[in-house]
Amino acid sequence: MITLDKYYDEIVVGQCWTSQGRTVTETDVVAFAALTGDWYPLHTDATYAAATQFGQRIAHGLLVLGIASGLLRIDPGTLVAFYGMDRVRFLHPTFIGDTLHVEMTVVALKDRGSEDGLVTFEQRVTNQNQTTVALSTLKVVLAKAPGSRSNT
Amino acid sequence: MITLDKYYDEIVVGQCWTSQGRTVTETDVVAFAALTGDWYPLHTDATYAAATQFGQRIAHGLLVLGIASGLLRIDPGTLVAFYGMDRVRFLHPTFIGDTLHVEMTVVALKDRGSEDGLVTFEQRVTNQNQTTVALSTLKVVLAKAPGSRSNT
Amino acid sequence: MITLDKYYDEIVVGQCWTSQGRTVTETDVVAFAALTGDWYPLHTDATYAAATQFGQRIAHGLLVLGIASGLLRIDPGTLVAFYGMDRVRFLHPTFIGDTLHVEMTVVALKDRGSEDGLVTFEQRVTNQNQTTVALSTLKVVLAKAPGSRSNT
Amino acid sequence: MITLDKYYDEIVVGQCWTSQGRTVTETDVVAFAALTGDWYPLHTDATYAAATQFGQRIAHGLLVLGIASGLLRIDPGTLVAFYGMDRVRFLHPTFIGDTLHVEMTVVALKDRGSEDGLVTFEQRVTNQNQTTVALSTLKVVLAKAPGSRSNT
Amino acid sequence: MITLDKYYDEIVVGQCWTSQGRTVTETDVVAFAALTGDWYPLHTDATYAAATQFGQRIAHGLLVLGIASGLLRIDPGTLVAFYGMDRVRFLHPTFIGDTLHVEMTVVALKDRGSEDGLVTFEQRVTNQNQTTVALSTLKVVLAKAPGSRSNT
Amino acid sequence: MITLDKYYDEIVVGQCWTSQGRTVTETDVVAFAALTGDWYPLHTDATYAAATQFGQRIAHGLLVLGIASGLLRIDPGTLVAFYGMDRVRFLHPTFIGDTLHVEMTVVALKDRGSEDGLVTFEQRVTNQNQTTVALSTLKVVLAKAPGSRSNT
Repeated sequence: MITLDKYYDEIVVGQCWTSQGRTVTETDVVAFAALTGDWYPLHTDATYAAATQFGQRIAHGLLVLGIASGLLRIDPGTLVAFYGMDRVRFLHPTFIGDTLHVEMTVVALKDRGSEDGLVTFEQRVTNQNQTTVALSTLKVVLAKAPGSRSNT
Repeated sequence: MITLDKYYDEIVVGQCWTSQGRTVTETDVVAFAALTGDWYPLHTDATYAAATQFGQRIAHGLLVLGIASGLLRIDPGTLVAFYGMDRVRFLHPTFIGDTLHVEMTVVALKDRGSEDGLVTFEQRVTNQNQTTVALSTLKVVLAKAPGSRSNT
Repeated sequence: MITLDKYYDEIVVGQCWTSQGRTVTETDVVAFAALTGDWYPLHTDATYAAATQFGQRIAHGLLVLGIASGLLRIDPGTLVAFYGMDRVRFLHPTFIGDTLHVEMTVVALKDRGSEDGLVTFEQRVTNQNQTTVALSTLKVVLAKAPGSRSNT
Repeated sequence: MITLDKYYDEIVVGQCWTSQGRTVTETDVVAFAALTGDWYPLHTDATYAAATQFGQRIAHGLLVLGIASGLLRIDPGTLVAFYGMDRVRFLHPTFIGDTLHVEMTVVALKDRGSEDGLVTFEQRVTNQNQTTVALSTLKVVLAKAPGSRSNT
Repeated sequence: MITLDKYYDEIVVGQCWTSQGRTVTETDVVAFAALTGDWYPLHTDATYAAATQFGQRIAHGLLVLGIASGLLRIDPGTLVAFYGMDRVRFLHPTFIGDTLHVEMTVVALKDRGSEDGLVTFEQRVTNQNQTTVALSTLKVVLAKAPGSRSNT
Repeated sequence: MITLDKYYDEIVVGQCWTSQGRTVTETDVVAFAALTGDWYPLHTDATYAAATQFGQRIAHGLLVLGIASGLLRIDPGTLVAFYGMDRVRFLHPTFIGDTLHVEMTVVALKDRGSEDGLVTFEQRVTNQNQTTVALSTLKVVLAKAPGSRSNT
């Protein structure tokens, strides 16, 4: 896990952070089905999944995003708000046993006055074969500098 | 939980499904932090959260989306693919003890040939006070009719 | 998951519902041992289980019933009360990796007056080889019609 | 937790074991809903449950039986097989915060030859007010003596 | 699971208890990482772990101690206080699939007056090959006899 | 969560790291009892615990250490081995709702040649009132510099 601990004023377009890896286990898929109640059989019925184009169970897309959010986090001192996500696309299935990494790249900056600014990241989740499994745009509001307010 | 069990050819713009409710418990928030590794203190440190503008811990945005995905599911027989999400916005915090419902409304239809079509839904998650806590656009590919292929 | 959404007045003896499948994973067995505290070694000690007549760990009988209860549920609008179970028999072991389905068949009806009636189901849980692993009798009280009281 | 560690030949009708207690927490109810997929709103939607005759969420009946199975277990050395359950009745709701104990009383014995015998227990689950919440009949096969086979 | 149910006055140096076994599953390792937040990649990234001297993921040392604490417990009626641990050493890795047993041997006794005494145990955790994976010294205060106070 | 990312050659006696906080919830205590199988009633039976000197349930000591291990971790690039713990003492109970922080202070250094060295830390876990709840000595082997081997 890597912590993104920069303030808005320290960030430039093109900066990039890469996380450590995490193997997606059967436990994760079952626990996510359990927690959310999403028992869609492509995720939880091995016999059903074996007969699909994927040939096996695949991880829920939101589980992939959740694991990504844990692998590369934003420092409590700098984050003002999680604004939202745009164009979330699941490009490749994640299978049980795959190991995911996350890359966050700054793609846009928008000043919001003296205290904070909106940072747009491209979040790319890749597996152990460097295939991109999910790609999305994340927007967060970061404090300008240590003196500015964060989410307190 | 309500299952959306229509085929593409049975769907019209404006159709709407509403789910049963689910109370978001402290267990859910801790379990989501645990599963994803996202221990951001606004979700998991009661003392820290008490000093923020929210005055208490709030649920992770992706947990809200995950619960929504379990409350209103799509029938295995009709779903071809989960295409993605657009403009995901977290409009209001979800606190421990809130009860969430989900509404899915068809906002656009796009024919993709003889077998399936792309359906765009607005997904609205509301709490027990009818406040919208999350609003997003979901795109899924549905089979045209019982004879067409689903994700097998 | 299939929802049994009929009222007492719509049900006849012989009606049958069949659920989607769910693969019983090692995660499920460990999580059930953990939740209940039942660490009987036939379920949780692979070395011990290998030396028994089963040759491997088997799922707890109550886990099989619990999974069945989630695979085929009764609609909140129709259910008045869960009366009980009779003659619960575990006929065949469930191994890690087996995929279970549930069949509920109406075997008896007993009118209880103007508001509700007692419905007796045979609940059969089968694995991917169509072997019955558990067979039991469930008794539930269902509302007579939309106007009658449910469990509110 | 108490372990029932007698062989068939040491057991007489009327013998009774009583377990330590366990408090049923919100975590247990959410975890059981999650594990089984049984999100019936009486267990998981606080707003819905508040409007029922119970006035609050209640624990799943099978969770009560599962907790009972963990509180009072049978020794691996003596147990040959779990035969089944009869007349399982849920007599009183279990609320979040209740503390359960289990009592197992021998009600019948049936010799099955030189190696083992069938023992019928009444299993009574009580809460902190000594109210019986569940009552059922459990049948297990126990080895006759240390020399007889158990489930190996 | 074995319960150590002796009072201080019944214990002599050299007494030994041995537990039943428990297989450490991938579920246990993921659940421990999740619960504690310790996602060190040697435990949770299969690709990373494959490149280390261990060649695969290993269980967290504290998980091994936690499992040991569940396999061999001390009776509520006799235990006054858990004093602490000394010289905890992890001597051999525990891999997913290993089956652990625990041995507790009394190594020292220290009278503390009329009500209780300090018992020092050597706790040895072994795997299915009789290799010791963890060795530590546990100190607990036990009541002298049924009449003495326990932790009430 | 704070990551201790120094190499042996960069560390001096007296250096100190302090983590963010984490609230210990009822979920954590139940999940730890479940995962380990340690259902000692002081942790899991609210009625029993109310009658003890503590007046309420307390968290397991090993849960406190586990949470500490997740709050303040050591960088994969620097860690060679987790050597062990000495003099682990639980000085004050941790109640449900307490918020824990961890402090790690370097108390001794021991060179082990050209590649790595043994670092001894005092690990102090404090609650929201700055009371120390657990104090222990941790020994880890750290790589000397980026060029030295870590646990690969």
